[in-house]
Amino acid sequence: MSFSPLIDRLIDALRVLPGVGPRSAQRAAFHLLERDRDGARRLAEALVLAMDKVGHCNQCRTLSEAALCALCNSDRRDRSVLCVVENPTDVIAVDRGGAYNGLFFVLMGHLSPLDGIGPKELGLDGLDARLAESEVKELILATNPTVEGEATAHYIAEMARRHGVRVSRIAQGVPFGGELEFIDAGTLSQAIADRRAY
Amino acid sequence: MSFSPLIDRLIDALRVLPGVGPRSAQRAAFHLLERDRDGARRLAEALVLAMDKVGHCNQCRTLSEAALCALCNSDRRDRSVLCVVENPTDVIAVDRGGAYNGLFFVLMGHLSPLDGIGPKELGLDGLDARLAESEVKELILATNPTVEGEATAHYIAEMARRHGVRVSRIAQGVPFGGELEFIDAGTLSQAIADRRAY
Repeated sequence: MSFSPLIDRLIDALRVLPGVGPRSAQRAAFHLLERDRDGARRLAEALVLAMDKVGHCNQCRTLSEAALCALCNSDRRDRSVLCVVENPTDVIAVDRGGAYNGLFFVLMGHLSPLDGIGPKELGLDGLDARLAESEVKELILATNPTVEGEATAHYIAEMARRHGVRVSRIAQGVPFGGELEFIDAGTLSQAIADRRAY
Repeated sequence: MSFSPLIDRLIDALRVLPGVGPRSAQRAAFHLLERDRDGARRLAEALVLAMDKVGHCNQCRTLSEAALCALCNSDRRDRSVLCVVENPTDVIAVDRGGAYNGLFFVLMGHLSPLDGIGPKELGLDGLDARLAESEVKELILATNPTVEGEATAHYIAEMARRHGVRVSRIAQGVPFGGELEFIDAGTLSQAIADRRAY
């Protein structure tokens, strides 16, 4: 059964949100119509503004409506270290840890030749030029520990070495608070191979 | 840590959706910005249209942008039976069952004197007028089986009886497919008290 055309259209449109299926889209549509029309209008305005104005930071490529994002523009960050991540949310994840105070470079993806995503699509020409300027002394590779993430890290490491920049990769091993019983065999093998003197 | 002002504003605005907390709002915002800007613009348009145009059906009070909703306008429904529900989604729930082919009356809530919701706010003057016109022969009370739903059902039953309209209440008992072990004591007591010859 369907509702009125405009309600059906709203329910359908809400499904662009990740994790929102038919039932939760229906619930959301009625919630907004019955209880929060002003909130829904604010959401519509925020959506249009963000989609129209948010582009990429000229320096680190993260999503930003300003030419330089807040981090690249900050004078409190250590400009000699650059951490390479795949996505804008990874910037938050690394920054939340509190152990890192340098700058970031956001690939907005990883190398994926079959999908036509090569070095150029990831802005690596820009990274190359930046490493040539030599303000950066160390590059930390924080791409995801997946096959694609590793391949991307490998490619960037080669590039950094050509510029004489020190390169490191974030440590892999068992996560803090994890129980060995539930950790996959690959991670555990890696953790044993990379064991440290104690 | 915050993102850019427009991204922060979008994340904040997304929280008007039921069940969307800070993390899923963030995930949704980045998903739309990185992968589905057109979908986000369609959502914004659907939101504005629905919030501006959707009102209430003049006859049954459900949400509808037309003066008469699709059900009230249908010539395939039995106009002699009227099912009273609290919310538009209850219409779908009852209709989905397939056992009902009459019309609906949607209260858009229940009696709640402390919140200033009396008979007038639920459109009961309109229902009263409609019962007086006598096309309706039976009224089925399908308000929720809660204290407020029962009180509302009681009030409407009195009104219907004044017009000589037959009144029934949806059956209460153990739900189909439910396991007795997990059914609350109140429901089970009611199911035993209302037992039927077998």
